[in-house]
Amino acid sequence: MPLYGGIEGGGTKFVCAIGTGPDDIRAEIRFDTGAPAETLAQVATFFSEHQALGPLSAVGIASFGPIDPDPTSARFGYVTTTPKPGWAHTDFAGAVHSMLRVPVGFDTDVNVAALGEHRWGAARELDTFVYLTVGTGIGGGAMANGALIHGVMHPEMGHIRVPHDLALDPYPGHCPYHGDCLEGLCCGPAIEERWGVPSENLAPDHPAWELEARYLASGVMNFLLTLAPQRIIMGGGVMHQQQLFPMIRRYVLELLNGYLQAERVIADIDNYILPPGLGDRAGVLGAIALAEGVHRCELPALDRAGV
Amino acid sequence: MPLYGGIEGGGTKFVCAIGTGPDDIRAEIRFDTGAPAETLAQVATFFSEHQALGPLSAVGIASFGPIDPDPTSARFGYVTTTPKPGWAHTDFAGAVHSMLRVPVGFDTDVNVAALGEHRWGAARELDTFVYLTVGTGIGGGAMANGALIHGVMHPEMGHIRVPHDLALDPYPGHCPYHGDCLEGLCCGPAIEERWGVPSENLAPDHPAWELEARYLASGVMNFLLTLAPQRIIMGGGVMHQQQLFPMIRRYVLELLNGYLQAERVIADIDNYILPPGLGDRAGVLGAIALAEGVHRCELPALDRAGV
Repeated sequence: MPLYGGIEGGGTKFVCAIGTGPDDIRAEIRFDTGAPAETLAQVATFFSEHQALGPLSAVGIASFGPIDPDPTSARFGYVTTTPKPGWAHTDFAGAVHSMLRVPVGFDTDVNVAALGEHRWGAARELDTFVYLTVGTGIGGGAMANGALIHGVMHPEMGHIRVPHDLALDPYPGHCPYHGDCLEGLCCGPAIEERWGVPSENLAPDHPAWELEARYLASGVMNFLLTLAPQRIIMGGGVMHQQQLFPMIRRYVLELLNGYLQAERVIADIDNYILPPGLGDRAGVLGAIALAEGVHRCELPALDRAGV
Repeated sequence: MPLYGGIEGGGTKFVCAIGTGPDDIRAEIRFDTGAPAETLAQVATFFSEHQALGPLSAVGIASFGPIDPDPTSARFGYVTTTPKPGWAHTDFAGAVHSMLRVPVGFDTDVNVAALGEHRWGAARELDTFVYLTVGTGIGGGAMANGALIHGVMHPEMGHIRVPHDLALDPYPGHCPYHGDCLEGLCCGPAIEERWGVPSENLAPDHPAWELEARYLASGVMNFLLTLAPQRIIMGGGVMHQQQLFPMIRRYVLELLNGYLQAERVIADIDNYILPPGLGDRAGVLGAIALAEGVHRCELPALDRAGV
C-alpha cells in the first residue's frame, strides 16, 4: 500500500506527517516556521528519521503564499513575493524534491485544505465548494467542477471588498494594501486592534462577534453568488469561536432576503455554512490527499518520474 | 458537416439561428419575447421554415433565468421561478426537443455567452474566465478549469454586495431583493432612476459614468480575487458605453493598489478587462457552440439520443 508524506507549510508553523489518511498517520511533527534553510532542514530531518516506516510514493505540500502553482511554469513550486523574511522566491517544492526524490505536489494552503475536506471531510461528494480560513489573515480555496481553482495565479478571496459600516465601525481596516477589504475588517489582528484585546480573550457575547459575523456574512454572500458553491466550509483560528456560525448563517439569510435563486441554500443553511470536517487538520491531511492525487496521476507534480 | 441550431432566449428578445459558427450563419431571426406558447411557436416556425438548409445535429439554448441547468434533475431544461408572466416552471428545452427531435443543450444566457467567447471570442485558449453582462440586469457566467460553473443552481454574480458610497450617492438601489447590490447600483434601470434619463441619453462625460465605473470596478475586483480568472469580459447594453472600459480598468488598479499577488493582472490590465470578441452576438453564437459541444458529446443534453 502506498505511503504518503504531507507538509503543511504555514507562515507561522509547519506540520509534517507520514501516513495514508486521517485514521492512519504514522508520524507527525510540528514546529515554528523560521528562515527557509533552517525550516527545510527540520523537514528533511523529520522524513529522514522516519525512513523505517517505508518508502514514500509521493509528497504533498500545502504552502503559505503567494506561490506559483502552475505546473507549466519554470517557477512551479516556488513561494514568490511574500514579505516573510528570507522566503521570497524560495523553491519550496524543489527543495523537498531534492531531499526526498519522489513526485511532489504543491498548492496553496487553502486549496490543499479544500482538497483534504473533499477527500475526507465536509466536502465529500461535492464538486463545487469553498474552503475559507479566518485567522491571522483570510484565505479561500475552492473547487469547481471537481478541480481546484487556479486561474491566473490563485484566488485571493480574503481581499474582496464588502460594505463597511463606517458609522457603526470607524475602524479603518488592517490590510496594508486594501485597508478595509474583508481580511482588513475581519482577520484576527483586526479584531484585536478594534477592541484592544486579543480576539480569544473576548467573551462569546461580546459585540465584536456580531460585527465580525456581519462582515463575514457579506463575504460568504459574495462567494455564494459568484461560485454557486454547494457548501462553504469555514475554518481557522477565529472560527474556533463557534458562536460565529449561527450568527453568520442568520446574516446570510438576511442578506439573501428570500432570493428565490438561492432556495436550496436557504432551505438548509445549517448544512451549508459549517466548520471543516477535519477541524484544524484539514491542511496537513489535505497535503496527504494531494500526495495521493499525485501518486494516482490525478494531480500535477514536480518531477513525477523521480530523478 | 454537422449543422446546428442556436436559441438565445432572453427576457426581452429571442434570437434563433442556424449555422456552424460566426462566419457561417445561414439563417437568423429575432423577435420580442411574449408568452411561452406564442414565443415557442415562433421558434418552431423559424426552424420549420428553414428545413431546406438540412437536418440539425443538435440545438443549444441560452436561456434567461433562473433555470435548472442540472442534467441529472427531472426539471433539467426548465425556466424555474421567474417573475416573467407565464414563464415560471416552463419546460423550455423539452418544448424545443419536442419540436426538433434532436439533442438539446441548455444553460443560462451568461454561461452560454461565456461558451461562445471561449469558442470564437475573447476567451479562446483560456480555461478560467468570467463573462459579465451589464444591461437591464447584471449577470455573470464563468468557466473554471475549462468547464462552465454550475454548483448549486448557477452563479448570480449580479447580486454580490459592494461598498456603497452613501454620502456621494444616496440612491437606495434598484434590486427588489437586495437594494444596493451590484445590480441594484449599476444596472441600466438604476442609472435611469438615479439621473432621471435613460442611460443611453447621458453624454459620455456625464458623472454618471464615473460612478458606474467605480461600482463595476468593485464587482470586477471581487470576481478577480474569488475566481482568479485569466480574463474578465464585459458585455451588455450598458457596456456599449466604451468610455467605461478605461475608467473601470483605472479603478480596478486603484483598488488593487499594487497588490503583488495580482501582478499579472496589473501588468496587462487593458487585455484583462475587455468587451466580448463576439460583441452582442456572444449569446446566439454561444448557443451554436453549445449545440456543437452537445453533438461532440462534450456537454450534457436533453435526450442525447433523440426520440
